[in-house]
Amino acid sequence: MITAVDVVDVRFPTSRSLDGSDAMNPDPDYSAAYVVLHADDGREGHGFTFTIGRGNDICCAAIETLAEYVIGREVDDLGEFHRRLTHDSQIRWLGPEKGVMHLAAAALVNAAWDLAAKREGVPVWKFLSQMAPERIVDCVDWRYLTDALGPDEALEILRGAETGKAERIAEIERDGYPAYTTSPGWLGYSDEKVVRLAREAVAEGFGQIKLKVGADVDDDRRRLAAARAAVGPGVRIAVDANQRWDVDAAEEWMGALAEFDPWWIEEPTSPDDILGHAEIRRRLAPIKVATGEHVHNRVMFKQFLQAGAVDFVQIDAARVAGVNENLAILLLAKKFDVPVCPHAGGVGLCELVCHLSMFDYTSVSGTMENRVIEYVDHLHEHFVEPTVIKRGRYTAPAAPGFSSEIKRESIQRFAYPDGPEWRT
Amino acid sequence: MITAVDVVDVRFPTSRSLDGSDAMNPDPDYSAAYVVLHADDGREGHGFTFTIGRGNDICCAAIETLAEYVIGREVDDLGEFHRRLTHDSQIRWLGPEKGVMHLAAAALVNAAWDLAAKREGVPVWKFLSQMAPERIVDCVDWRYLTDALGPDEALEILRGAETGKAERIAEIERDGYPAYTTSPGWLGYSDEKVVRLAREAVAEGFGQIKLKVGADVDDDRRRLAAARAAVGPGVRIAVDANQRWDVDAAEEWMGALAEFDPWWIEEPTSPDDILGHAEIRRRLAPIKVATGEHVHNRVMFKQFLQAGAVDFVQIDAARVAGVNENLAILLLAKKFDVPVCPHAGGVGLCELVCHLSMFDYTSVSGTMENRVIEYVDHLHEHFVEPTVIKRGRYTAPAAPGFSSEIKRESIQRFAYPDGPEWRT
Repeated sequence: MITAVDVVDVRFPTSRSLDGSDAMNPDPDYSAAYVVLHADDGREGHGFTFTIGRGNDICCAAIETLAEYVIGREVDDLGEFHRRLTHDSQIRWLGPEKGVMHLAAAALVNAAWDLAAKREGVPVWKFLSQMAPERIVDCVDWRYLTDALGPDEALEILRGAETGKAERIAEIERDGYPAYTTSPGWLGYSDEKVVRLAREAVAEGFGQIKLKVGADVDDDRRRLAAARAAVGPGVRIAVDANQRWDVDAAEEWMGALAEFDPWWIEEPTSPDDILGHAEIRRRLAPIKVATGEHVHNRVMFKQFLQAGAVDFVQIDAARVAGVNENLAILLLAKKFDVPVCPHAGGVGLCELVCHLSMFDYTSVSGTMENRVIEYVDHLHEHFVEPTVIKRGRYTAPAAPGFSSEIKRESIQRFAYPDGPEWRT
Repeated sequence: MITAVDVVDVRFPTSRSLDGSDAMNPDPDYSAAYVVLHADDGREGHGFTFTIGRGNDICCAAIETLAEYVIGREVDDLGEFHRRLTHDSQIRWLGPEKGVMHLAAAALVNAAWDLAAKREGVPVWKFLSQMAPERIVDCVDWRYLTDALGPDEALEILRGAETGKAERIAEIERDGYPAYTTSPGWLGYSDEKVVRLAREAVAEGFGQIKLKVGADVDDDRRRLAAARAAVGPGVRIAVDANQRWDVDAAEEWMGALAEFDPWWIEEPTSPDDILGHAEIRRRLAPIKVATGEHVHNRVMFKQFLQAGAVDFVQIDAARVAGVNENLAILLLAKKFDVPVCPHAGGVGLCELVCHLSMFDYTSVSGTMENRVIEYVDHLHEHFVEPTVIKRGRYTAPAAPGFSSEIKRESIQRFAYPDGPEWRT
């Protein structure tokens, strides 16, 4: 039973180095609205939602408000736990299922999964992989999804993936899961730094890199040309506009970049604009379209898939309401046969989301074809069980839980506004 | 110049009477995250966002966070004022443009319009009606809209409506704007109360009433039959499911109600589900589909219109980011030739939104055909300039500003949690 909930506003001053800079986010301070669930057996569940600075305190306040729904409760029924946080009628008015309250729910839901997996003594990806299909289906909130996918068909999908699952689990433990890296491509970096980091990424074994675009088309052409020359034709270069364009602008701008063979364009326009993405995808083919890090819930992902608006679904571990809602999205993506390539980076998103992709491989899609998890080499040093990349692949987490725990000394140092890093 | 911002958490204990009860919201406490802008000329701008209780404090905290973007600023450029509140990169991460932060922006934007109109000495609907088309267009954030409507075409629309505008302003001042009433139809009311209130509504001059549905289909059939018998065939009865259904359920349930000739079904499913609404509309025709009170921004409304998903656009004065974003939505609705029938009720939504419909008539659509503003007879006594209904029509507000000011004694009495109404 959960007996107490601690919430901490943790912010890292990343804006000082322009790590993480892009066309919409010039000066992010990567932050976590961080939560610890304390259980009566002495165990803890750690979770967080990710923001880029201002407003992280509002997310913390929202988690405090939602804490009343979890104190005194168990985490053995994780479906019910999730619905309790997203179905309250008065809270729903503030969304429903979007924005600050949904980010807050994500932190609590992910913390509950951390706690539940620790009790089983397994990492979350394996906890999920070993869960009966019926229980997975019970974890999903099917409301508003059944015109595309319902629980019965989801059960068929999961049962179908039972075949060969043990081998896929062993494969994940042996070989990990493929990654791509965004580290070379931040908009604040010089051309020389982009080229150097792109070469290093290929040398380290990455088969895909990503560059930020969308601030200035001539700069983008120059940077992309340099990166393409540096890595050669065999490495995929994705580009990411971080919502900068309207539909026509996306077509025009990407037309100017097409000669450098971009693999996908990510977030060409508003994350709410399903029909806009569909139109952009139609106009830009064969360049592919990816989105998801700001897509706020399963109902939106359903429509992106129904409308044929994306080639890649970029789930985020803490934008939608945590593991449960991502289970729905993984199942929808399987139904529509669209690869899931998670968004990561920020604070701890790599640590979290690899669990979901690994479960997707073992138990849902059963394939890694055209699937890669984003990797950014920021801030991992603050985690107790940091992401480990080997030869361009995520190593399977082995420790029990969700790899979500931030070191105590980091929390103290970067607590906002009273930690020593911020007091100066 | 704005020199200070006051924020108050005001909650009315409406759950005690079941006023406002529906299938998704069994026990709302109608609340306002209320803001007062203090200007250096001694004037005040009053605004608020509406919630139904829990989480109203989070909206207040969000307004406090956004207050730093308005203190020290003027309100003479209302387009820039609006963009300042919705474009901050770190705040955008918490949405973008949705949920708590967007509700908070609505309160501040509406307060700025109140202040600006008071300075001109006119009510907001007339302030807007007298504004040059170029200035209206400058107030709109066109980002993500231009595949459907851009500033040039919007200017044409507004210029086209200059003809006859003076006559329409005079007509509004003389005759007001048609209303419909939801007061008879709350789900917590007995059949007898529904019938009595429905008869009273017709006697008072309303040509349309609305009933809540979606909790129990047999109850809905019985209530709707009773209401239809009470008002006769000539009065429109809209029904409102408050997001209760998936697509198939909406078809089935409304099939059971069709014999009672419902005029529209409101919020049949998730407010995020554009494609779901489009499919429901296709299946239910000739029953019409309405939605909007939870549609979170102009990008979503754009798509509802592009997808042919709604017969009526139900703008809300404080769900999207205030007047500016509603200008975009009015213009989009005109472009797609879909009537705007605002959501109202709650706390002060009637007071606010009639200004927007009146402007729509004088300066955008130029017609009242099939257009009605929702009216609910709750909580008007707390407003300094309350809505006045005569013979089923909203009377044109005459006092300068946005009719948004709550009486000082009401704010003190219902302040949460320390006002006398809540201390007991």
